[in-house]
Amino acid sequence: MANIDEIISKLADTLVADYQCGRIIDEFKVHAQPDKKKVIDILEKLRMIVFAGYFRNGMYKVYTVRNNITMLLEDVTFNLKQQIAVVLRSSPEYENAYTEEIENAAEYLTFEFLGKLPKIRALVETDVKAAYDGDPAAFSTDEIIYSYPGLYAIVTSRIAHELFLLQVPLIPRMMTEHAHSLTGIDIHPGTTIGEYFFIDHGTGIVIGETTEIGNNVKIYQGVTLGALSTRGGQSLKGHKRHPTIKDNVTIYSGASILGGDTVIGKDVVIGGNAFITSSIPDGARVSIKTQELTFRYSGDKTKVDDPHATIERREIDDETWFYII
Amino acid sequence: MANIDEIISKLADTLVADYQCGRIIDEFKVHAQPDKKKVIDILEKLRMIVFAGYFRNGMYKVYTVRNNITMLLEDVTFNLKQQIAVVLRSSPEYENAYTEEIENAAEYLTFEFLGKLPKIRALVETDVKAAYDGDPAAFSTDEIIYSYPGLYAIVTSRIAHELFLLQVPLIPRMMTEHAHSLTGIDIHPGTTIGEYFFIDHGTGIVIGETTEIGNNVKIYQGVTLGALSTRGGQSLKGHKRHPTIKDNVTIYSGASILGGDTVIGKDVVIGGNAFITSSIPDGARVSIKTQELTFRYSGDKTKVDDPHATIERREIDDETWFYII
Amino acid sequence: MANIDEIISKLADTLVADYQCGRIIDEFKVHAQPDKKKVIDILEKLRMIVFAGYFRNGMYKVYTVRNNITMLLEDVTFNLKQQIAVVLRSSPEYENAYTEEIENAAEYLTFEFLGKLPKIRALVETDVKAAYDGDPAAFSTDEIIYSYPGLYAIVTSRIAHELFLLQVPLIPRMMTEHAHSLTGIDIHPGTTIGEYFFIDHGTGIVIGETTEIGNNVKIYQGVTLGALSTRGGQSLKGHKRHPTIKDNVTIYSGASILGGDTVIGKDVVIGGNAFITSSIPDGARVSIKTQELTFRYSGDKTKVDDPHATIERREIDDETWFYII
Repeated sequence: MANIDEIISKLADTLVADYQCGRIIDEFKVHAQPDKKKVIDILEKLRMIVFAGYFRNGMYKVYTVRNNITMLLEDVTFNLKQQIAVVLRSSPEYENAYTEEIENAAEYLTFEFLGKLPKIRALVETDVKAAYDGDPAAFSTDEIIYSYPGLYAIVTSRIAHELFLLQVPLIPRMMTEHAHSLTGIDIHPGTTIGEYFFIDHGTGIVIGETTEIGNNVKIYQGVTLGALSTRGGQSLKGHKRHPTIKDNVTIYSGASILGGDTVIGKDVVIGGNAFITSSIPDGARVSIKTQELTFRYSGDKTKVDDPHATIERREIDDETWFYII
Repeated sequence: MANIDEIISKLADTLVADYQCGRIIDEFKVHAQPDKKKVIDILEKLRMIVFAGYFRNGMYKVYTVRNNITMLLEDVTFNLKQQIAVVLRSSPEYENAYTEEIENAAEYLTFEFLGKLPKIRALVETDVKAAYDGDPAAFSTDEIIYSYPGLYAIVTSRIAHELFLLQVPLIPRMMTEHAHSLTGIDIHPGTTIGEYFFIDHGTGIVIGETTEIGNNVKIYQGVTLGALSTRGGQSLKGHKRHPTIKDNVTIYSGASILGGDTVIGKDVVIGGNAFITSSIPDGARVSIKTQELTFRYSGDKTKVDDPHATIERREIDDETWFYII
Repeated sequence: MANIDEIISKLADTLVADYQCGRIIDEFKVHAQPDKKKVIDILEKLRMIVFAGYFRNGMYKVYTVRNNITMLLEDVTFNLKQQIAVVLRSSPEYENAYTEEIENAAEYLTFEFLGKLPKIRALVETDVKAAYDGDPAAFSTDEIIYSYPGLYAIVTSRIAHELFLLQVPLIPRMMTEHAHSLTGIDIHPGTTIGEYFFIDHGTGIVIGETTEIGNNVKIYQGVTLGALSTRGGQSLKGHKRHPTIKDNVTIYSGASILGGDTVIGKDVVIGGNAFITSSIPDGARVSIKTQELTFRYSGDKTKVDDPHATIERREIDDETWFYII
C-alpha cells in the first residue's frame, strides 16, 4: 500500500504543478462557484409554485396551500439570493464591490424575479392549452403537465428568460441547459416567446439567443431557429442573429430557419425539412419540392404509388450495390 | 428581515389569489397525484426482473435468485398498485367509484400486467440479439445491456405498451417519457413492436402512437415515424395516423415516414434523410437522389472525386461569400 | 392478503423457471457486475480533478488544493481499480485468471490512466478556448465550463478514450453513454480527437468508433460522422468504417459524412444538411444547392424575397390541401 500512496502523492504533485501553469481553466474561485444542484433545486421548486396543485412537496408536511407556497417561496428566496450573489461576485461589474452591495443587489434581483411569477403562470396556462388542443395523442392536461418534455422546456425557458432580462449571469443558462439535458430542447434564455407556444416531441430543437417568437406558434422535433454563420465569433455578440417568427406559425420537423433578418410572417406553415434563409410573407405555406427518390428491387414488383417518385427498376446483381446509410 | 417576511407574505397572497382564477393548471388534486419518482423506481425494478442476472439489488441483502425476485415482485406489486389506484381515481371512468372498487381494479391491472413479464423477457432477448448481430461496434451482449440507449428505450416501451393495452392512464406515458429524457428516443406507449427490434444511436427518433412495426426492423438516429398533419388536433384522437412497417425493414438516419395509410413493405431499405409519405412495395431499396452540392475554393484545387457533384470553381474574392450554416 | 402472496409466489416460480431457459440475457454474474452509479461517480470526480477550481467538493471538508486533489485521487483510484477488476473478470482474456492477476492488471491500468490526466487537461483547455472564441452567445469561459453540453461530452470523450486505448472493457462506453444521455451527443470512446474541438448545441450528433478528427474542428447539432452501411454487422468489427476529418474543418448542423475512405480535407466548410459520401479536397466550401421550395397562399400576397425559390401562387380552395408535416 505504501507504493499506492507514493504513486498518488506523485500524481497529486504533478497535478498541483499543472494547476500553476496559468491555464484558463484554472481560476480558483472557491467563493464564487454557483452550485448546479441548488440551481436545479430552485428551478424544481419554482415549477411547484407554478403548478401548485400537481406536485406534492414531500419535504414539508404542510397541507394548506398558502403555508405550502410560503415555505416554497422562503426556500427559493434564500437559495436564489445566495446563488445570484455568488455569480454577481465573479462578474466584472461587481469586481470591486463590497459584500453588502452584492447582497443587496442579489436580494433586489430575487424579489424582482419572484414578482414575475403570476405573469409566468398566466403564460404557462396558455402553453398547456396549446398542447392539449394541438396534439391528438394527448389524453388530458394532466398528462401534459406530468410528462410532456416540450412543456418542461417552455416553463424552464419562461423562468430563465425573466432572470436573463434582469441580467443575472450564468444562472439562466444553467437552467435552460438543465432542461436541454432532460428534453433535448435547447432554448437560449434570451429567446422572446409569446403566448400559446407548443413544442411536440422536441428532441433536437435549437432556438438561438436573439430569436423572437409570436403568439400561437407550434414547433416540432429537430427544428433549428439559428444563425446564418458564426464565423464572426465573439464579434457578433449582441447582434440580432436569429429569426423572427410572427403569430400563428407552424414549423414542422427538421426545418431550419436561419438569419437575423429572416422574418416568418403571420399564419405561415413551414413544411418538414425546409431550409429557409430569407423572409416568408404572411399566409404562405412553404414545403420542399417532393424529393426525387430512387427505387431498386431484387425482382419484379408492383407499381409504387408515389406519383412524384422517380422509379428505377433493375435487378440487384451484386452485393456491392450502394445504398445510402 | 421583517422586510423579507413581508415581501414573501405579499407574494404568497398574490399567488394564492392567482390560484383562485380557475386556470386549467390549477386543479388541486392532493390525493390524485401520481408520483414520478415512484413510477421511475417501478420501471427500474421491472428492468431488474427482466435482466435478473445483470443488476444487483443493493437494497435487499438476498442472494438466492428466487428470494431476490420475490422481494422485487412484492415491491413492484405494492407500488404499482398504489400508483394505478391514484391515476384511476382521477380518470372520468372512476369519477364516482368507491375506494374499494378502485383498489380492486388497480390490483387486477397490476397482476394482469405482471403476468406479461415472461412474454416481455422473451421479446427483449430477441432485441439484445438483434443489437449484437447488427452493430459492428458492439463488443459483447453485456455492453448492450449495460450501456445501449436503444435497448433501454425498447425495454421501457415493451413494459409501457402492456400497461397501455390494459388502459392504465398516465403511467405508460410517464415511463416512455422517462426513457425519452434519458435516450432522446420518443416511442409512444401505443406503438406496436414485433421481435428483433434494433435502434442504433437513437437520439431524435420519434415513433407515434398508432405506428405498427413488424419483426426484425432496424432504425437509426433521427428517424420519424409520424403523422402527415395534426391540424385536426383532438378530433384525430384514436385514428390511425402513423405508418405500418412490415418485417425485415431497415430505416437509415434522418428518414421520415409519415401517414396512417403509408405501408413500408417487407425487406425494404429506406436510405438516410428520405421523406416518405406513401406506401413502398416489398423488397424496394429507396434512397434520395444524390444531392447536388456546390463547391467553392479559395484557390486552384484537385478534382473532387464525387461523380454526382456539381462543381463550381471560383476564387473567393471577398469575405461576404455566403455559406449555409 | 394470502391471495396476493400466492399470486406473487406463482409469478416468482414462473420467472425463476423462465431464467432456466438459457436465454442470452440470463447470465448470472453476481460478482462480475460493473456498477453504473460508481462509474458515473468516478467520471464526476475526474471532472473535478480536471477543473479543480470550479467544482467544490461538498463531501470532503478540505480547503487546500493539494489535499483536495489527493482525496479525489485516492477515491478514484480505489473505485476505478475495483470497477476495472470487475469488468476484466468477465472478459474472455481473463477467464481463467487468478484474482491476484486481475487485481494487479486493474491497478496497472488505473495508474496508467491517471498518468494521462495532465495531457487530458491540456487538451480540455484548448476546447474551452475554442468554445469561447467560436460562440457569440458565450458570455464567459465560466458559462462554458458550468453549462455547455458540448464541453461535457468532449471532456467525457477524452477521459473515456484514454481508457479505451488501454483496452479497458465496458467502462469507457458506459461513460460516453452517460454523456450521450445527458447531452444527446453520442461520441464512441474509440474516436480520435485533436486539439481545439468545439461542439455547439450538440443534440443528435453521432460520431462513430473509427472516426479521426484533426485540430480546430467545429461541429454543430445533428451532424453524423458515420458508416456507409452496417449490413456486415459483426464482420465489420475493427475495420475503419467512419470518416477522417482534417484540421480547421467546420461542419454545420444536420450534415452527414459517411464512410471509412471519406477524408474531409483541411480548412473545408461543410454546409448544413449536406450528405457527403466521398472525399472533399482541402479548402473546399461545400453546400447543398438551394432547395426548391413550393409556396402556396390563400390569397394574393407580396413577392417572396428568395430568388432561388420556385414560387407557385394559387388559391387554397379546399381543406384537403396537402402539406408536409
